[in-house]
Amino acid sequence: MTTETSQTATDLFERMRATNPLVQCITNYVAMNYAANVLLAAGASPAMVHTPEESGEFAAIAGALTVNIGTLSPNWVEGMIAAAKAANRAGKPWVLDPVAHFATGYRRDAVAELLKLKPTVIRGNASEIIALGGGQSAGQGVDSGDPVEQAEEAARGLAIAQGAIVAVTGEVDFVTDGKRSVRIAGGSDLMPKVTATGCSLTALVGAYLAIAPDQAFEATVAALGNFAVAGEIAANTANGPASFMTAFIDGLHRLDGATYAKNLRINVL
Amino acid sequence: MTTETSQTATDLFERMRATNPLVQCITNYVAMNYAANVLLAAGASPAMVHTPEESGEFAAIAGALTVNIGTLSPNWVEGMIAAAKAANRAGKPWVLDPVAHFATGYRRDAVAELLKLKPTVIRGNASEIIALGGGQSAGQGVDSGDPVEQAEEAARGLAIAQGAIVAVTGEVDFVTDGKRSVRIAGGSDLMPKVTATGCSLTALVGAYLAIAPDQAFEATVAALGNFAVAGEIAANTANGPASFMTAFIDGLHRLDGATYAKNLRINVL
Amino acid sequence: MTTETSQTATDLFERMRATNPLVQCITNYVAMNYAANVLLAAGASPAMVHTPEESGEFAAIAGALTVNIGTLSPNWVEGMIAAAKAANRAGKPWVLDPVAHFATGYRRDAVAELLKLKPTVIRGNASEIIALGGGQSAGQGVDSGDPVEQAEEAARGLAIAQGAIVAVTGEVDFVTDGKRSVRIAGGSDLMPKVTATGCSLTALVGAYLAIAPDQAFEATVAALGNFAVAGEIAANTANGPASFMTAFIDGLHRLDGATYAKNLRINVL
Repeated sequence: MTTETSQTATDLFERMRATNPLVQCITNYVAMNYAANVLLAAGASPAMVHTPEESGEFAAIAGALTVNIGTLSPNWVEGMIAAAKAANRAGKPWVLDPVAHFATGYRRDAVAELLKLKPTVIRGNASEIIALGGGQSAGQGVDSGDPVEQAEEAARGLAIAQGAIVAVTGEVDFVTDGKRSVRIAGGSDLMPKVTATGCSLTALVGAYLAIAPDQAFEATVAALGNFAVAGEIAANTANGPASFMTAFIDGLHRLDGATYAKNLRINVL
Repeated sequence: MTTETSQTATDLFERMRATNPLVQCITNYVAMNYAANVLLAAGASPAMVHTPEESGEFAAIAGALTVNIGTLSPNWVEGMIAAAKAANRAGKPWVLDPVAHFATGYRRDAVAELLKLKPTVIRGNASEIIALGGGQSAGQGVDSGDPVEQAEEAARGLAIAQGAIVAVTGEVDFVTDGKRSVRIAGGSDLMPKVTATGCSLTALVGAYLAIAPDQAFEATVAALGNFAVAGEIAANTANGPASFMTAFIDGLHRLDGATYAKNLRINVL
Repeated sequence: MTTETSQTATDLFERMRATNPLVQCITNYVAMNYAANVLLAAGASPAMVHTPEESGEFAAIAGALTVNIGTLSPNWVEGMIAAAKAANRAGKPWVLDPVAHFATGYRRDAVAELLKLKPTVIRGNASEIIALGGGQSAGQGVDSGDPVEQAEEAARGLAIAQGAIVAVTGEVDFVTDGKRSVRIAGGSDLMPKVTATGCSLTALVGAYLAIAPDQAFEATVAALGNFAVAGEIAANTANGPASFMTAFIDGLHRLDGATYAKNLRINVL
């Protein structure tokens, strides 16, 4: 089963790179440049289109939509909602990244609105997923204060309640649709030291959803595998967060299917 | 003629670096950091001032203005219009970068308004220039789907219709004022893999216009030459898009007139 | 006295890294990514929360607030004011970075409003501090046109008038509370060639204030020392602004107390 899952992930990896999918990213100001460079390096075509005057129109053109609430304001929330609605109407998959949604009332309300629009995938760190599931998280601002394992139950519950794929990322990632669950090892402890790493991964999940909208679970696993493999390789030559970032982007660009398959460490539960 | 054009470009390159011109950049969220670092490395002084409450006042102070519609919203469009009007009143040159203007109605309308304000230079990729000329482009989101050569006729027509310099950038760049035309070779195929490369070039065109407002054609050629030379050199040591970016910015900073002149590959048509 | 000041700075350096303080940064679009990466590398936890709907609520949670006016607009000014008021109510320290405040009327008015809210620390370049003190600066856009020494008198006057710590940064930094004054040597002449270097330092001052709110003068000195030491070391291996940036972030991440103490060059006046 693990071998089959790995093979599917590798197939999706190769298909994504060959297809250069157009991904609409409504993400935060901190992440925009890095997320765009991650998508370009990984083989996708990012487009940052956020304002309600055009976000819905563009969502119908793009292969997938990703929504990240990192640096909210009213015009952006309106644009996110318009885009998510349009994605739903056009049958396009979309990803929600509920950054630090527990930190303020404004964030909680925005996420509640967005959850009603049924994201295909929800990706967050452990603190965010625990809090979304109604639990008490140890998160401080945007950084997680909880290990991924403690979020696995909350993730399963959330996946069932929302009818969504839920991905919890951290030292070992966890993906579930409520029934099936997978853990993905890899990456580097330098990744949380690079801002917008999670936000960029959300954008990459969009790239995989765009080429496999009917395999949202498998696409999410393949995207997380892509990050984990490239991150683990990049860490070998890094002297700190910035040289890691350089090696990571370069590595995403150079990664091929054989290296992906060889380094992927998936554990089907 | 080519030699004379190259000599003029080299003179402008040296003058720009010696003058440290102040350039107002109204650009997109993705590009802001990279464009500012490109200008600083190349020898200019960038200032990102966008809101209508001050964009016009600042346009009268700056040596040139650049306007890029990558991540539009109403307040920004208003600020762009105010700045372009003020630049015109103050006799300052300005550049328009019509990012993916064909993608949505909102973008098309914004660009139509901005074109009425008579940009000194219009810089875009082939798909953008073809679509501006009324043709059918193969563009997907912000990335070009057409080769530069196919945009040359559209560029000439647009230059005449607008009374502007038109620059189409890609594998080989093309600059025209409708009568004179120049091709510029160089750069690297890693450049389109770095987000905001075109946006940063737009900002650099502003730096050259600021020091040679009465030689807009020559200034545009010199700016594109600067990018092409620095890009080609940077590619020699790059392992991927991120190490390219580092080498490119470092190289812009270190480039001198002799190296510029030696590596410039201009072809006057 | 200098030795005592250096020892205090080293203690604060070690405490900051051990504490991982949460810092709310309301900064400009150009700086957001770099400032966040600087804070993460240095050992703090950045959170970019700006909109008035939540900026005040978050300011009560964060350890300190930093406000930078680089890319203003009305919603942001409102968010800055709400956050500064909330920080004051909650007894949290906050830093003001008055980027190019002399350039437009809109900026002057925004800074006048913010100064009424009594920032704990004001950090700027020489031109900004001279102009805040009512003098005639040679600043052009966001870059300083004056040496730090010429701003020392203005800084002392401003510190007394505002009841604030004033930090003037440049080739040699200067910190004063109106009575005590310190100069800090170090850094690199590549630092002004990297955009948002000053903005990132402002954010780092916030990290130190968060862990030593009752020692604002000492905290500011320690933060500037952190930048100066890491910058000087990074310059040894840099080939230009971008490789400097990489070495600087990596170096901030790896810096330890012994290296900090050994390389700190503080001069108590």
